[in-house]
Amino acid sequence: MSDDDSFVLDPRLAADSHFIADGPLSQLRLVDDGRYDWLALVPRVPGAVEWFDLDAGQQQRLFEEVRAVAAALRAGTRCEKLNIGALGNIVRQLHVHVVARNPVDPAWPGPVWGASALRRMSDAERDAAVGRWRGALASLSPA
Amino acid sequence: MSDDDSFVLDPRLAADSHFIADGPLSQLRLVDDGRYDWLALVPRVPGAVEWFDLDAGQQQRLFEEVRAVAAALRAGTRCEKLNIGALGNIVRQLHVHVVARNPVDPAWPGPVWGASALRRMSDAERDAAVGRWRGALASLSPA
Repeated sequence: MSDDDSFVLDPRLAADSHFIADGPLSQLRLVDDGRYDWLALVPRVPGAVEWFDLDAGQQQRLFEEVRAVAAALRAGTRCEKLNIGALGNIVRQLHVHVVARNPVDPAWPGPVWGASALRRMSDAERDAAVGRWRGALASLSPA
Repeated sequence: MSDDDSFVLDPRLAADSHFIADGPLSQLRLVDDGRYDWLALVPRVPGAVEWFDLDAGQQQRLFEEVRAVAAALRAGTRCEKLNIGALGNIVRQLHVHVVARNPVDPAWPGPVWGASALRRMSDAERDAAVGRWRGALASLSPA
């Protein structure tokens, strides 16, 4: 599949998350839930649904991006556990979640997906979190 | 981390799933829930918790194994969607779930993890499913 200008972010992903940065393949977004440090990668590949439907190079790039996001989340949160998931049952556009989890978070030890409605961030929370993760993941951006 | 003879499967994983095959890095297991086609890969690396704590070669081998399992699940089930997840909030031993999902399954469109108690297979169901996936994934085994 081609990685080109015809990529359009799914409207539900757009409504439920905030732009952080563009990586080599994917758009990095912050999920709009103040209870978690929760990032998502959305490959800019029109029509992509399953990770393994990407071409081999794209699969690998996404894997490298997930690794970078996981490392930043762990370094920035000292979480107890990382959760990585590619589900897509509700939104088909391929996206990979990377979530920092802790025993005190409201969904623990269950998954965050489907656990409860998002607890939307205030504008100030959002700006702080976007700024924080944009800084931490500056290295993800293409040179 | 070393991939050696001191690997011991977590007792909860052992109780909740059945051995299918050993891949190059991971033990492939069938989760004991007759409502889903649900496989899990458990790298035979003592002490492994997070995917990105494996050494670089192991990370890549696990990724290749997940790809092979995803391809077999899709070919064997014609599922609507694959769900791939590495959570580990309950069982810390590193394991990656690959699940074939369909709109008629009981957890749809939510995740299978934590949705409800496992619906254990009968002996006959288990034998049939283990045989089926062992055949489909024979290529995963080391030569």
